[in-house]
Amino acid sequence: MELTILGCHSATPRENFHTSSQLLKFKNHLFLLDCGEGTQIRLREQKTNFKRIKHIFISHLHGDHFFGLIGLINTFRLLGRNIDLNIYGPKGIEQVILLQLELSKSITKFKLIFKELENDHSEIIFEDERVKVSTIPLRHRVYTNGFLFEDKSKIKKINFDKLNAFNIPPTFHSKLMEGFDYVDKDGNLIENFKFTHKSKNSFKYAYCSDTCFFSSIINQIKNVDILYHESTFLNQDQILAKKTMHSTAQEAGKIASKAGVSQLILGHFSTRYRDKSRFISEARKEFKNVILAEEGKTYYY
Amino acid sequence: MELTILGCHSATPRENFHTSSQLLKFKNHLFLLDCGEGTQIRLREQKTNFKRIKHIFISHLHGDHFFGLIGLINTFRLLGRNIDLNIYGPKGIEQVILLQLELSKSITKFKLIFKELENDHSEIIFEDERVKVSTIPLRHRVYTNGFLFEDKSKIKKINFDKLNAFNIPPTFHSKLMEGFDYVDKDGNLIENFKFTHKSKNSFKYAYCSDTCFFSSIINQIKNVDILYHESTFLNQDQILAKKTMHSTAQEAGKIASKAGVSQLILGHFSTRYRDKSRFISEARKEFKNVILAEEGKTYYY
Repeated sequence: MELTILGCHSATPRENFHTSSQLLKFKNHLFLLDCGEGTQIRLREQKTNFKRIKHIFISHLHGDHFFGLIGLINTFRLLGRNIDLNIYGPKGIEQVILLQLELSKSITKFKLIFKELENDHSEIIFEDERVKVSTIPLRHRVYTNGFLFEDKSKIKKINFDKLNAFNIPPTFHSKLMEGFDYVDKDGNLIENFKFTHKSKNSFKYAYCSDTCFFSSIINQIKNVDILYHESTFLNQDQILAKKTMHSTAQEAGKIASKAGVSQLILGHFSTRYRDKSRFISEARKEFKNVILAEEGKTYYY
Repeated sequence: MELTILGCHSATPRENFHTSSQLLKFKNHLFLLDCGEGTQIRLREQKTNFKRIKHIFISHLHGDHFFGLIGLINTFRLLGRNIDLNIYGPKGIEQVILLQLELSKSITKFKLIFKELENDHSEIIFEDERVKVSTIPLRHRVYTNGFLFEDKSKIKKINFDKLNAFNIPPTFHSKLMEGFDYVDKDGNLIENFKFTHKSKNSFKYAYCSDTCFFSSIINQIKNVDILYHESTFLNQDQILAKKTMHSTAQEAGKIASKAGVSQLILGHFSTRYRDKSRFISEARKEFKNVILAEEGKTYYY
């Protein structure tokens, strides 16, 4: 997985602070998560191949998470795109996009496929052989979902120390990694488990923005490898966090700790704070392995 | 008048090429003309006092002229604005803005006053003591208006050589400039025209984007001081210009020449051309006093 932070600030975009958007390379997919104003410029800065983006996930319809979507779609159109585009987001998203295309008499050569979300429980919204994406219902001022990305492939690691005892041709190694047993030329069955490690749990990434402290998500994000959790505020602004239904850094840490995730990435920062290291120190009271999202940076896992 | 070009490129925004928007300081007003995606960032770069913008004029509903409007309104809202905002633009603009505010459950403390345009003839859409703004119906793929800004004040210049022959106190000079006659202490009428120059025609700025070559506008923009006219293409792409209902630089020059304007500013450039000086040389075949719009630059008149 490669995660590029295109924007990780809340509310209004500034010259050097961009609103929410992430580019997620997950197995063979390039997913876009949220799309604040100017996201298409961030994608150009990353030299993104626009055609590779086939699925866009919008958490909620606050402007800092979706005002860039219509511009991106329009740019796809002007560049002559002819590959389907799937958009997942709250009910209403289709109307607002189609209305703007209609008012500008713009016709896309590609299909725009909307999957409008309105359930209060988690649902699988995309799945193929290797990847599964589910919603993580969040609690915010408007209907909001986070998204859980799961790698379904269970590639096993070969234990070469043990493998040497058997006469198995290297051309069969990829089959072994997929879990197949081997039958030698005399018809003897050599069982897979004898020379492979147990397959690890599948890799999972959870994107949770925007939300207040909401313990109901803990079960669903249990033991995920990477959790991106919003932390709009610091403890000093707890009242504001409550009022606006956002989280503090410490609350994000608490969620990470209770869910036993491997790493927490903090983001969706209010631009009011100059010293971002305070987000880290406050979250660390609850959970050690925490980092700050940085715009323009790619994280490799 | 002060005219700041925030964006003067067509179609899709790029890292260093912004879509249409202009900030026009005209008498005591700060008008915004069109509002492509990211305009709010351009306004921040110019250190604009957001509260001073009370009137926004949208030429048409193509994305490169209005996708930044909802983001700007939302930012005004988040910054606690409580001053009315007037928006002039094609029918449909109110629906698309209000729908997005509704979907995000956003309430503005300020009044949003829409003046939707649908006439095919010119109409006065704003007027006060000093300024008049009228539409300039243009011809494009969708319903489009340019805008004509007129300084209504007819300040006369005093002819001091002649004034010296009369005994008029300096405290009355401003009245003289406004055209008043003077009555001396013996009751003698001294007529204004005897010591003032004839008032010049009022200062006018015409914004015409987007449009194909459309000679019907010539009458309305006759003798304006400054004409901003789109020139998306060069002559080599005349066929494309016709197809997309845009103008070439030479066509813009022809309009400027026939209208007898004082200066022509070219803009709305396609990003396909590296060497912009060609726009100048092609327009100069028709009209001499022509300059290129430059993003981030302010022109003082």
